[in-house]
Order: sequence, then C-alpha cells, then structure tokens
Amino acid sequence: MKLENLRDLMVDELRDLYDAEQQIIDALPKMAKAASSDDLRQTFEEHLQQTKNHKRNLEQVFDQLGEKRSRKECVGMKGLIKEGQKLMKEKADQEVLDAGLIAVAQKVEHYEIAGYGTARTYANMLGENQVARTLQQILDEEGETDKKLTRLAESKVNVEAI
Amino acid sequence: MKLENLRDLMVDELRDLYDAEQQIIDALPKMAKAASSDDLRQTFEEHLQQTKNHKRNLEQVFDQLGEKRSRKECVGMKGLIKEGQKLMKEKADQEVLDAGLIAVAQKVEHYEIAGYGTARTYANMLGENQVARTLQQILDEEGETDKKLTRLAESKVNVEAI
Repeated sequence: MKLENLRDLMVDELRDLYDAEQQIIDALPKMAKAASSDDLRQTFEEHLQQTKNHKRNLEQVFDQLGEKRSRKECVGMKGLIKEGQKLMKEKADQEVLDAGLIAVAQKVEHYEIAGYGTARTYANMLGENQVARTLQQILDEEGETDKKLTRLAESKVNVEAI
Repeated sequence: MKLENLRDLMVDELRDLYDAEQQIIDALPKMAKAASSDDLRQTFEEHLQQTKNHKRNLEQVFDQLGEKRSRKECVGMKGLIKEGQKLMKEKADQEVLDAGLIAVAQKVEHYEIAGYGTARTYANMLGENQVARTLQQILDEEGETDKKLTRLAESKVNVEAI
C-alpha cells in the first residue's frame, strides 16, 4: 500500500504504535519480575494496566477513523525490548539491574512520546480533533510515567546502586 | 564483566551511546539523500556534523573517566535505524516520505534524550561534575534538534504532505 498523504502516514504510525503497545504489554511482566525494588515492581505493574488502556484507546481511534485495527511490526520497539532482554541476562548486582531497568523503560517511554507526539500533530493538522485529543491524553500519560521513573531513580533506585 | 555499581552502569550506558552515535553517523547521509525538501536535507546534514562532535565529546568523557573508548552494540538504535530503512523502501509520495523521515529522526533524538539524560543523572550522582556538564551539553543539543524537526514538520514538511 502506497503512502500517498499525511492521513496514510498517520494510520501507518498508529499501526506501529498499536504493535509497540502489545510488545510492551508482553515485556512489562518480565521486567516487573526482574525488579527487586518493590516500588519499581509496582510502577511496572501499574504501567502495564495503563498500557492495556492505551491499546484500547488506539482501538477506539481506529474505529473513529474507519480504519482496520491492524498492527504493523514496530521494529524500533523490538530493538528497545531486546535491549531490556540483554540487560536482564547480564551479570549485575540487583540494585544496579533495577537502575538499568529504569533506563530501558525510559527509552521505551521516549519512543512512545515521539510516536504519539507525531501522530497527535498529524491528527491536528488533518482536523481529526477527537483523535488528536485521545492521542494527547495518551501522550500526557506517557510523559507522566517518564517523570515518575525519573523521580523513583533519583530518590531511591540509583542511590541504592551507587 | 559484572555490573557492580552505578559507575559500571554509567560506563555501559556511555558505550551504548558511543555505538548509537556511530550508527547515526552512518545513517544520516542516506536519510539526507532520501529527503526531497532542501530544508530537511540541510537539517540532516547539519545534524551529521553535530553528531560527529557528540562522538568526539564522548571520547573526551571516556578519557576523563580513565575508561577505554569502546563501543557496545546499541540494539535499541539498531531497531530505530531499521525503522528508517524500512520507510525508505516503502512506496510513498516524496512529501509523505519527508514527513516520515522526520518522524523517524525524532524517535532517534528521543532515544538519545533518554540515554543522555540517564547518563547525565548518573554522573551527577557520582560527583563526576565535568562529565555531567559535557553530557548535559549534548542533551541540550539533542533537545534543540528535536524541536527544530518539530518546527520544520509543522511549518512546512507535514503541510506539503497533506
């Protein structure tokens, strides 16, 4: 299928993000299991629920646009998840692994911040106001998760890894 | 090598970023060649020079830390670059491809924003003030490039893709 206009590109980006969310849903339980800090484990578990909601929000977006709910393999997220898998296989003190897990999770968040920011801008420019609002809401939540991870790292997890 | 403390993790992250910068140096000329917008091509070319400087800055950082200048394969960046390669192979109108190239470039910037933000925080917590300053400077420049790409997308490139 040829990408002929910004709408095609928006739908393509949304299918990439829809696949990314599923990859994150599959990865977060493993990251939660690998975490030794209770706070970090809880943050990952809460984020898993939020990620499941984002996936549902994306399904509504596809419906609103009259587009099929289909995924496009997100190779970017695949690389980021692989980075996390590699980390979990390394020899590391438990506190250091926790700090590393936060670093990977923030890279995942930043992928989503870039992707949803782009898709929201496309939706705004195309006059798809309801879609733009939904994407802005997801974007705000991803940004909040990123900040939460920073606070947890700086106040506790990194400190224990020193 | 076991990751025993936050310093080990910082050096590990820096080696990941050192590899990421090299991957970006290899990818940007292809992205510039694929771009049809003169402004976008110029932005990629300027960013290539900036990226080469960031690689040199990282070499100084390794020297300051008394650590070997070695790379660790950055699988996260590998995935993001692959996303760009896939896009360049898709059938797309030239204006739409330009908009998509910006989207990929912003994902690359966000990877770096997350990675340098993390490494800068580690350096601060470890009292490596000179290293922290250098990393903050790179971080600021990556943030500025991300904003520049947003402005170019919103003012010109996306508009032409509608």
